[in-house]
Amino acid sequence: MFHQFRSDYIELADKRILDALNKYSLEQNIPYGFDYHSDNAAKYILKTFGSVNGKVYFLEGGTQTNLVFISYCLRHYEGVIAADTGHINVHESAAIEGSGYKILTVKNRNGKIYPEQIEPLLKNNSDVHTVKPRMIYISNSTEIGTIYNKKELEDLYRFAKENDLYLFIDGARLGSALTSEENDLEKTDLGNLCDAFYVGGTKNGLLFGEALVINNPELQKDFANHIKNKGAMLAKGYALGIQFEEAFKDGLYFELAGHANEMANLIKDGLLELNLNLGNSPTNQIFAKCDKEMANELIDVFGLEKWIEEEDGITVRIVTSFATKKEDVDELLNYIKKLMK
Amino acid sequence: MFHQFRSDYIELADKRILDALNKYSLEQNIPYGFDYHSDNAAKYILKTFGSVNGKVYFLEGGTQTNLVFISYCLRHYEGVIAADTGHINVHESAAIEGSGYKILTVKNRNGKIYPEQIEPLLKNNSDVHTVKPRMIYISNSTEIGTIYNKKELEDLYRFAKENDLYLFIDGARLGSALTSEENDLEKTDLGNLCDAFYVGGTKNGLLFGEALVINNPELQKDFANHIKNKGAMLAKGYALGIQFEEAFKDGLYFELAGHANEMANLIKDGLLELNLNLGNSPTNQIFAKCDKEMANELIDVFGLEKWIEEEDGITVRIVTSFATKKEDVDELLNYIKKLMK
Amino acid sequence: MFHQFRSDYIELADKRILDALNKYSLEQNIPYGFDYHSDNAAKYILKTFGSVNGKVYFLEGGTQTNLVFISYCLRHYEGVIAADTGHINVHESAAIEGSGYKILTVKNRNGKIYPEQIEPLLKNNSDVHTVKPRMIYISNSTEIGTIYNKKELEDLYRFAKENDLYLFIDGARLGSALTSEENDLEKTDLGNLCDAFYVGGTKNGLLFGEALVINNPELQKDFANHIKNKGAMLAKGYALGIQFEEAFKDGLYFELAGHANEMANLIKDGLLELNLNLGNSPTNQIFAKCDKEMANELIDVFGLEKWIEEEDGITVRIVTSFATKKEDVDELLNYIKKLMK
Amino acid sequence: MFHQFRSDYIELADKRILDALNKYSLEQNIPYGFDYHSDNAAKYILKTFGSVNGKVYFLEGGTQTNLVFISYCLRHYEGVIAADTGHINVHESAAIEGSGYKILTVKNRNGKIYPEQIEPLLKNNSDVHTVKPRMIYISNSTEIGTIYNKKELEDLYRFAKENDLYLFIDGARLGSALTSEENDLEKTDLGNLCDAFYVGGTKNGLLFGEALVINNPELQKDFANHIKNKGAMLAKGYALGIQFEEAFKDGLYFELAGHANEMANLIKDGLLELNLNLGNSPTNQIFAKCDKEMANELIDVFGLEKWIEEEDGITVRIVTSFATKKEDVDELLNYIKKLMK
Repeated sequence: MFHQFRSDYIELADKRILDALNKYSLEQNIPYGFDYHSDNAAKYILKTFGSVNGKVYFLEGGTQTNLVFISYCLRHYEGVIAADTGHINVHESAAIEGSGYKILTVKNRNGKIYPEQIEPLLKNNSDVHTVKPRMIYISNSTEIGTIYNKKELEDLYRFAKENDLYLFIDGARLGSALTSEENDLEKTDLGNLCDAFYVGGTKNGLLFGEALVINNPELQKDFANHIKNKGAMLAKGYALGIQFEEAFKDGLYFELAGHANEMANLIKDGLLELNLNLGNSPTNQIFAKCDKEMANELIDVFGLEKWIEEEDGITVRIVTSFATKKEDVDELLNYIKKLMK
Repeated sequence: MFHQFRSDYIELADKRILDALNKYSLEQNIPYGFDYHSDNAAKYILKTFGSVNGKVYFLEGGTQTNLVFISYCLRHYEGVIAADTGHINVHESAAIEGSGYKILTVKNRNGKIYPEQIEPLLKNNSDVHTVKPRMIYISNSTEIGTIYNKKELEDLYRFAKENDLYLFIDGARLGSALTSEENDLEKTDLGNLCDAFYVGGTKNGLLFGEALVINNPELQKDFANHIKNKGAMLAKGYALGIQFEEAFKDGLYFELAGHANEMANLIKDGLLELNLNLGNSPTNQIFAKCDKEMANELIDVFGLEKWIEEEDGITVRIVTSFATKKEDVDELLNYIKKLMK
Repeated sequence: MFHQFRSDYIELADKRILDALNKYSLEQNIPYGFDYHSDNAAKYILKTFGSVNGKVYFLEGGTQTNLVFISYCLRHYEGVIAADTGHINVHESAAIEGSGYKILTVKNRNGKIYPEQIEPLLKNNSDVHTVKPRMIYISNSTEIGTIYNKKELEDLYRFAKENDLYLFIDGARLGSALTSEENDLEKTDLGNLCDAFYVGGTKNGLLFGEALVINNPELQKDFANHIKNKGAMLAKGYALGIQFEEAFKDGLYFELAGHANEMANLIKDGLLELNLNLGNSPTNQIFAKCDKEMANELIDVFGLEKWIEEEDGITVRIVTSFATKKEDVDELLNYIKKLMK
Repeated sequence: MFHQFRSDYIELADKRILDALNKYSLEQNIPYGFDYHSDNAAKYILKTFGSVNGKVYFLEGGTQTNLVFISYCLRHYEGVIAADTGHINVHESAAIEGSGYKILTVKNRNGKIYPEQIEPLLKNNSDVHTVKPRMIYISNSTEIGTIYNKKELEDLYRFAKENDLYLFIDGARLGSALTSEENDLEKTDLGNLCDAFYVGGTKNGLLFGEALVINNPELQKDFANHIKNKGAMLAKGYALGIQFEEAFKDGLYFELAGHANEMANLIKDGLLELNLNLGNSPTNQIFAKCDKEMANELIDVFGLEKWIEEEDGITVRIVTSFATKKEDVDELLNYIKKLMK
């Protein structure tokens, strides 16, 4: 069977993550996240991202993290602004609305949103009958692999603060964003240019787990109670602490993400040589438009996701991960070359 | 430091569980629980428990499983009946009410509840102003370590069916119940004497995870959508599948639970020799009443939970796990002996 | 002060409605809607609309009725499809999402939606990550005064049934729709071409109150319990029963709506003579585009709502009601004539 | 047919309330509660109850008011403390839990609760797994007709403030409490000894409506948005404003309540003469224990509620209202006298 490029969460975990879990397999730890591994991991993360007053909460998955944090911040008459392509809007089975909160969508520009698009929403939502915007949700990297540059993030955060909005960054693929060749954000910008963000483990070589960093102290009170109330508190919280400790104690997290990006770059280079039309993602997701026959074969053989189907072709998504090897890339490119002959 | 007896989820996982995870660390699997490990695990579990029409859903923790399942079964004007000591009533930070459902409590008898206690609730709740009882929730083993015998379970299930109620069994410690010396349930009774139950992994040597078995086909429709909506669907669902496959393919689950019970029995025997007053738990939780000074020392040294504080003493909880060793038991008993001299 | 044309709920109630309330002011009635007035009213309504298996539930307001009914029909992973202009989407302060349900919007065509627009939503929402469409919500008359003709309603209902969707009609202004000159629906179509609809009282001369008619028997079970659970059950339910009994016992409801339409027609005729640009509403809401100065003066003097502001003018909304008199219309038209000279 | 003593909301409204509605039947008013009648009513109410920084919000019913206010004040991991007999706990079809909040019950003492009963709840609920108490809910008069005296209310409010709890008074029958012969509260105590309370109209001669007074300014922000979000904002808000304006402009509210109490006192005197066993309610609800045969006849003939059924008799509830007349009382007492011969 060929190596699959379906997504970055189809392999369990990097060996070093599993080794850490093995190492502590019988160590006795305080449950519910109050253990020293979680403490260590939190310290590493806060330092890495320059979050001076932040607190870190470990959760199990991305949709869960979005649900738990957004439901904490909003009242039921308030809404969260997101790109129409935002994960919370399209791929979470109404988890946000299911917990009682409206999403106000803005047409994405290359996966991203901008203050001038949000401004009209604020004007149109100013009486008791309309939902009150209270938060901006963005993803970095976005759902289509693009990334926010520093100016874009600064503009959004300034706009948010001027308009009494929270800015929350979904970082399910934050590693890939920050290790992208095109990235101009400092890691410490994350601790200073938003109210909260999360550091995705699931899509970057951990067995599971997301580290939510709440920079804004106003949003930390009783947050652990809220996690428990949503059924999202892991009894063996140290299983998350150990993994993030390992990932952040000396840079493994960025090493894994950088590797996935590197593999993606090799694929992009190969596809461009073949004159395929690519989306402009500088991260580990590649969007390639192919004729239908070829697309369907690649979907079958490499487990690709069909992204957009149009009259004149299908855009497929190719995703690399911490586990993608150079020979997997070669195999994929050779296969495509043969198809195109 | 002394071995701690605080709870059965303070050690990460049994070696064989971790070995299985290691074995498949780089295998590529379909995400969200649609992988072959999850399929295998489900088959083993359905067979073990004799659930002919059942389906298995893997979740991350006990509170989450309770929240996800109860919120699926009830409408907001319906309620779930539980013992006042029930986990959902006292230790889940209002997760059930937080998702919109009232708990109707019944005074526990030795941790358990009986049809004749539930009957009055049905009579008092029969108009539009009162909540409509719709489900009975029990735990086996219970929060105080006791277990339901076959007749008790049969009576409850018959009563439930006669009164259009669902019967749901919280099996966070199901392994300990079924391997108890006093147990007279067949494993296959679980598949036939309730609408749903779950098989706890977290408290029985797995890294994390609970296997929810829905026997009643009426309660299976779109259940995966509901899991996702509650933020409870693990992306790497195969991380749960691999663990439960290992636990159920040849009896490891019950081996681990049986070991914990065996260690608990040694402790009980030792404490009874010392003439301590014990609760009548036949499982891996031991409740011992001590004078206050001794209780407080044991709490400090062995991490015990203070269960009940009374004028004439403190009841402490001692819990054994898959990882408790004979020498840990000896150490504890010797320490207590010395204290009592 | 000039007569105001702000909306159709700025006058308390028609005299005959208040007379009925006065008549029964000291009569003793069974509370919570179980009284004979409510029974009578329900019978009149079911007969009027040809709902053979229907049940009628009286509620206090439109947003409340939408919230109570939609929350009854959907599960939290299911969604309701509505026009982007739908009342539930824009003017209910997120009441639907607040109670846990996502709205999937479709771009309105003249205030209305069509099966071919809904079809793509069904295709794109077919796995566990996307919300499952389960209901179509339309308003008749719509938020911009247009109405569904018989063929449109038949098509929608057939499509709904073919796709396992409920069709729900918001009839806050149903009277105005059914008495419009352009209407080709029979009243009895309401009882047969949707799963449920409501008959708006608030916007048609009642003190308050909406009559929800649930045609589909599958959606009636325990509905009163659900109403109570949402805090929407009026203790003196007979206050609603008396009003709807009066409104439906011999056609007052349609008389009042017809009057409002007649007054609106006079205004439309007058405005067209003045060559103003009107929306194509055949009901009691008139949308007129004026130059900005004139629009702002009319807003000030007649309490009109500013509907759309564009570069080249402002569209204002003029609404007539049961209480609008011929001389009020003349006053308005004369005022506008003077402005335009 | 005999006059019914079933409850105080089985007659529509006092004539003066209806006259006020008639008077303004065609007056044009700003909708949604932003009209001058609502303003006037709010001023009268704030003055009457001495609420210096308070705001008044008009709602349609008691359960709705409890739901809307409690859901505003609490987070989902917080709970509201109430007597086991509290209306929110037993007669609201789980409206509070349905909106996501746990009720923590305390055994009532004569319908009331006391700080020393609440204290243990605070101690037992102090970690992330237990619900966090945040509000005390009491009713005055209580569900069994008793009333809080000044010292009791002061003690509760002081305790609440010392423990960071809100104190909320359900005043569905506040008029009856304040006009009771045994009452020692000043009206202005309501504005100063709780965070919020409501003034019940439904059970005191209004067509419908409750006036929620929020004394605590921290609980007022965006409250109108919240009302709308819960589907509880009446479009014709002035229908509530007009009624409360009439009720409070010169004391009608207390006149009506005082009359009901007076009639109740006549009944109580009569029943005591007959040596019947009465509950100690000093308000308009009377609880009388009768032998079963007599109880059942009174239930049939006078529409009484069966309150408690015991081996040796049945306690029935007799309720007077603004509409009860001296001759109705005589008729009842004579009927009972005959039965007892």
